[in-house]
Amino acid sequence: MTLSAERIRSAVEAERTVAERFLSCLASKTADTVGVTRDSYGDGENRAHEIFAEFAGELGLELRHDAALNSYATLRGTDPDAPAVVIGSHLDSVPKGGNFDGAVGVAAGLTVCAALRRAGAVVPFDVTVMGIRAEESIWFPASYIGSRAALGSLPVDALDSVRRNDTGRTLADHIAASGGDVAQLRTGRAQLDPAKVRAYVEVHIEQAPVLFDTGLPLGICTGIPGNFRYPNAQIIGRDDHVGTPRRFRRDAAIAGAALAMAMDREWAKLEALGVPVAMTFGRFHTDPDRHGMTVVPGCFHFSLDVRAYDPNILNQLKAELHRIVDEVAGAHRVTVDLGRRTSAMIGEMDPLIIADWSDRAQKIGLSAMRLESPGSHDAAAFAYAGVPTAMLLLRNENGSHNPDERMETSDLMDACQLLTHWLVDLAK
Amino acid sequence: MTLSAERIRSAVEAERTVAERFLSCLASKTADTVGVTRDSYGDGENRAHEIFAEFAGELGLELRHDAALNSYATLRGTDPDAPAVVIGSHLDSVPKGGNFDGAVGVAAGLTVCAALRRAGAVVPFDVTVMGIRAEESIWFPASYIGSRAALGSLPVDALDSVRRNDTGRTLADHIAASGGDVAQLRTGRAQLDPAKVRAYVEVHIEQAPVLFDTGLPLGICTGIPGNFRYPNAQIIGRDDHVGTPRRFRRDAAIAGAALAMAMDREWAKLEALGVPVAMTFGRFHTDPDRHGMTVVPGCFHFSLDVRAYDPNILNQLKAELHRIVDEVAGAHRVTVDLGRRTSAMIGEMDPLIIADWSDRAQKIGLSAMRLESPGSHDAAAFAYAGVPTAMLLLRNENGSHNPDERMETSDLMDACQLLTHWLVDLAK
Repeated sequence: MTLSAERIRSAVEAERTVAERFLSCLASKTADTVGVTRDSYGDGENRAHEIFAEFAGELGLELRHDAALNSYATLRGTDPDAPAVVIGSHLDSVPKGGNFDGAVGVAAGLTVCAALRRAGAVVPFDVTVMGIRAEESIWFPASYIGSRAALGSLPVDALDSVRRNDTGRTLADHIAASGGDVAQLRTGRAQLDPAKVRAYVEVHIEQAPVLFDTGLPLGICTGIPGNFRYPNAQIIGRDDHVGTPRRFRRDAAIAGAALAMAMDREWAKLEALGVPVAMTFGRFHTDPDRHGMTVVPGCFHFSLDVRAYDPNILNQLKAELHRIVDEVAGAHRVTVDLGRRTSAMIGEMDPLIIADWSDRAQKIGLSAMRLESPGSHDAAAFAYAGVPTAMLLLRNENGSHNPDERMETSDLMDACQLLTHWLVDLAK
Repeated sequence: MTLSAERIRSAVEAERTVAERFLSCLASKTADTVGVTRDSYGDGENRAHEIFAEFAGELGLELRHDAALNSYATLRGTDPDAPAVVIGSHLDSVPKGGNFDGAVGVAAGLTVCAALRRAGAVVPFDVTVMGIRAEESIWFPASYIGSRAALGSLPVDALDSVRRNDTGRTLADHIAASGGDVAQLRTGRAQLDPAKVRAYVEVHIEQAPVLFDTGLPLGICTGIPGNFRYPNAQIIGRDDHVGTPRRFRRDAAIAGAALAMAMDREWAKLEALGVPVAMTFGRFHTDPDRHGMTVVPGCFHFSLDVRAYDPNILNQLKAELHRIVDEVAGAHRVTVDLGRRTSAMIGEMDPLIIADWSDRAQKIGLSAMRLESPGSHDAAAFAYAGVPTAMLLLRNENGSHNPDERMETSDLMDACQLLTHWLVDLAK
């Protein structure tokens, strides 16, 4: 069937309230003292999935959950054997975070389903909106827990070895307490067969204001960075009196500063060469139980996240880090214990979808540019599983992981229009 | 009168148990889970002054307290008009600190008085052992509270403006609760007339293992550093997503690291020129309520203590700090708020006493070297008040402000022997 661009545009516009109501309902029901808190496998995230279920019901979509409690709302296609298109994103948030990070991708999926129906589109394949669990690794220090559990690529031992930072309880504990089926997850079997997914697409606010600066509403994602992380690194020196001469000191904080600046110089070098990389020392601190104005700090803690789009660059930076650690330990007479390392795969976006969306945006008069994602996304887990994967990024002035995220609903509607248009053509 | 060096030595040795018992009584009655805690104008320090009073009584010394609750135990001289020699030190400690920092100076005073009496020394002037209050500025962020209150040089407004870091209550509150006379302190009058003090001497463990490394028991202090301090400095940037590109970041932690490293380079330069200086970022940390592995830190806190023995060097470093702050704020797009500044005067030691002690040590066979004090001491407040002031430092392997301080009683006895010998000759 053929639907005019104008008919699709007006169907999407008519369903704008789906996105608006979904987002505002989430914002009010998961509000914290500032921003929102939707803790992974906790009250906040559980409430978000309840809201998702309500909207699925209202829109007449078929609801199901998998053993990991990912939620799926499906607009049934005419051909039960055709692989589905999944429009997904996560429903958790960082503590006191913004309402849009994650949730807009689900809002987009719901709006697209409603628009497809309103426009009278006949689509052979299922269009499934997926509300994904536990993407924000600030809660559980592991990447893509929900999507990897769905795809069967989450290591089974993570269920017992990974604990939530605030509660100290295991992932298995939290999943069970939320009503999930841990026994089934222990089999390691996929909950969602990658072979039965024709494509996975995700809409997400941009996490740095590149689109905002450029003045464009939409970014077509060209890649998701892989990372390596040290969630709990530690430097041990020696507490000393504030007047201790330089040659006697084993100052863990100055060693931490030296380490961070050395890594930062590596970043600056790559930046000058045009190699996209990011490094973050998110926690970077003396020991609150011991530090004071008149004590040379003998203990320093930090976390480190290093991300890049090229596995060779990641390996090069790992080697640099170890060289710097040795250098700092020697120069400052301290011990640097990097602790456990975690890592996430690089997510490659499907070149055919990228090309399609670029052409299509131009054809229907939407402004878009190609853009690397600075952040990690569940899309990487789908790409890694061999599913053709693509992402749309939305203009956002104020970064993410904070309550000042700023997205215009009209930009979100542009993304929904592009996706609906693409799905209608895919159905031909 | 003349007493042989041997008679003095054996009198000091016979009173060794005074020092041993005083220190062990303090250690057991102010013990914390590790080390000792003698909080300024709190239970720990109050208990130490009670113990001081018991020992003064046992030794037959005349006990009094001033309005600020400094304790004085006096061995009366034969001439009531002769200015006194004060042997003093503080009785407070840092939290979970070592037993020797401060207390050994009081132990030395008690032992010297006992030894003078045992040796049958006739001394015209009073010898007063002073147990000083509130020297460890980790409790109240102000220098030399007890000794400056005694000498009338503590600004009166400190009584109400300075609060204890842990309790949040004012200095006046704590002094009153411990039984002091705040009304009298508000007059700003000296409790101890500097014109009536012939000399102030203080014995203290060394705070860096210079004597230990050199293999000498005694250091004759050549100067006490002055300092400037920023107890609560803050860097404000912006919380951002962990993947935010470099050009968008306003990373407060990296700005903190850059600032610390720039100051550290200034220190290294001065060190190479042989100029004694010390810098300490004692608290150096991201915000515990906001930081996390996946958030670029938008907030960073630090304290800074900069000390030197030359006022020109302190001024030069103040200027450098402000230059560096501007540079870092510009380069990292952050705001640096240094907050309130406090400072302590440089303490000049009396050259005549230094020369006397150096000669005398050699004459009576004690090994000593001249040495700058790395730490601040009440002696600086006496020197500033115009009192001829000197200090003896004692060999200590493990620094101070920690429970591993290590002092040999025989080194303390060497110091007592030198002081007793000096007092007997001063009495001639």
